[in-house]
Amino acid sequence: MSADDLILHYFEDIKEGQSASLAKTISESDIYLFAGLSMDTNPAHVNEDYAQTTVFKTRIAHGMLSAGFISAVLGTRLPGPGAIYVNQSLKFKAPVRIGDTVTATVTVTGLVPEKKFVTFRTTCTVAGKVVIEGEATVMVPARG
Amino acid sequence: MSADDLILHYFEDIKEGQSASLAKTISESDIYLFAGLSMDTNPAHVNEDYAQTTVFKTRIAHGMLSAGFISAVLGTRLPGPGAIYVNQSLKFKAPVRIGDTVTATVTVTGLVPEKKFVTFRTTCTVAGKVVIEGEATVMVPARG
Amino acid sequence: MSADDLILHYFEDIKEGQSASLAKTISESDIYLFAGLSMDTNPAHVNEDYAQTTVFKTRIAHGMLSAGFISAVLGTRLPGPGAIYVNQSLKFKAPVRIGDTVTATVTVTGLVPEKKFVTFRTTCTVAGKVVIEGEATVMVPARG
Amino acid sequence: MSADDLILHYFEDIKEGQSASLAKTISESDIYLFAGLSMDTNPAHVNEDYAQTTVFKTRIAHGMLSAGFISAVLGTRLPGPGAIYVNQSLKFKAPVRIGDTVTATVTVTGLVPEKKFVTFRTTCTVAGKVVIEGEATVMVPARG
Repeated sequence: MSADDLILHYFEDIKEGQSASLAKTISESDIYLFAGLSMDTNPAHVNEDYAQTTVFKTRIAHGMLSAGFISAVLGTRLPGPGAIYVNQSLKFKAPVRIGDTVTATVTVTGLVPEKKFVTFRTTCTVAGKVVIEGEATVMVPARG
Repeated sequence: MSADDLILHYFEDIKEGQSASLAKTISESDIYLFAGLSMDTNPAHVNEDYAQTTVFKTRIAHGMLSAGFISAVLGTRLPGPGAIYVNQSLKFKAPVRIGDTVTATVTVTGLVPEKKFVTFRTTCTVAGKVVIEGEATVMVPARG
Repeated sequence: MSADDLILHYFEDIKEGQSASLAKTISESDIYLFAGLSMDTNPAHVNEDYAQTTVFKTRIAHGMLSAGFISAVLGTRLPGPGAIYVNQSLKFKAPVRIGDTVTATVTVTGLVPEKKFVTFRTTCTVAGKVVIEGEATVMVPARG
Repeated sequence: MSADDLILHYFEDIKEGQSASLAKTISESDIYLFAGLSMDTNPAHVNEDYAQTTVFKTRIAHGMLSAGFISAVLGTRLPGPGAIYVNQSLKFKAPVRIGDTVTATVTVTGLVPEKKFVTFRTTCTVAGKVVIEGEATVMVPARG
């Protein structure tokens, strides 16, 4: 299977408005494993006694964990393999708690042919409410 | 131990130019665990045969994994517990490979007293070379 | 960033009575991952049917998992990087269950200048009740 | 399967000099997962650039990771299920590196019938060299 076989979308295939999503229900182990990987053991993520004294009333997921789902959509659905992450902006709008189902959605907002760049609106929602919003730019391989 | 005992820095304690860092040598298991957590199983991260055909010549870490180290510095060192992530921008400047030691550094660039916001320049470097650069805004609890 | 930049406390900086803590709410995934890492798959940790027949009435965490938090405080807070673990004694006083928040605290009890040794009282508590108590000795780098 | 079916040794079955072992080759992922679980992200364990500047010349495993193997022998081999950890002392004699095979061995040194306590000499060795030594006491269920 050559590298090209893995490419889902070439630059020429991508249209404004095109979108894709992935969703995951956040588990305690997601948060604990991410804390371990990233070294972000802030008590808001791993200390329930502390978390109950915060404005969020219980442990919350790392913003970057949900942001990872945006990376997953870009990396495996749209554009998918072959694309190179150029930049990502993230506004953390609301907390994500254990048991919440986070849906990451990317929507094409523009194309820059000379650089083979595609720009996306990227959001994470929980029960339809935006928890993360931002923009991403990705370089996509051209077919030609 | 009350929540306040965990706070390392209140808003009033933070000065422009203040900085903190954390570093980690990226292991294969970091990348594979992050792929599992985030669902970002793009072959560039988990398929060495494919990765050798890419411009990077071998598997690379997810940009968001290194971005997680920025979150760790903000969440556990500066400002540390009590801080709330408001936003983060990320420019992915260079790939990170297995065995690379990523140093995430945050440096205070501004203070917004009326909102208790602190702005940071945030970078990830490998052997002194910038692999990620961006800005972050964090809301920090006030002592008063 | 040189190794010295990572040192939080040199031997000369440490005073009797100085203390530091870290806390974590024990999750099922913590216990299961520790069971996998350590190979300690004693049913008291991973078999709920069995655990309900024991004096503890449910699965309990490995004593060495909580002891790992003592190591974390010594290794990342006080003294922090540069310190070398010499010895640790542990008395397992009470079980720790899934959902318990364990606070590991180390308190300086003595200094041995000629060896650059620092001795600590080390405890793990859950809701203020001691679950592990012991002493530790750590060799700490000198500034001079 | 009743709880008793899982018991390998009752107090009456245990003789002085009896011993058991378990061994594991330390992987990078063992160290990284333990760092995540315990929150002990001391750079000596997760930062190869830093570790090369230390006396150990490369990253080393957490002492408590190897100590976990002692817990595994006591918990799953001798005495095995039903035993309750009373105490453990640990002297960290030499570092353990990635790729080292650690053998944890426990040897019965004494029996305290009135308390159903069994005392053990506990060691961890790498290529026959002692890296951890200590004593443990475990309470073992009686058959009668």
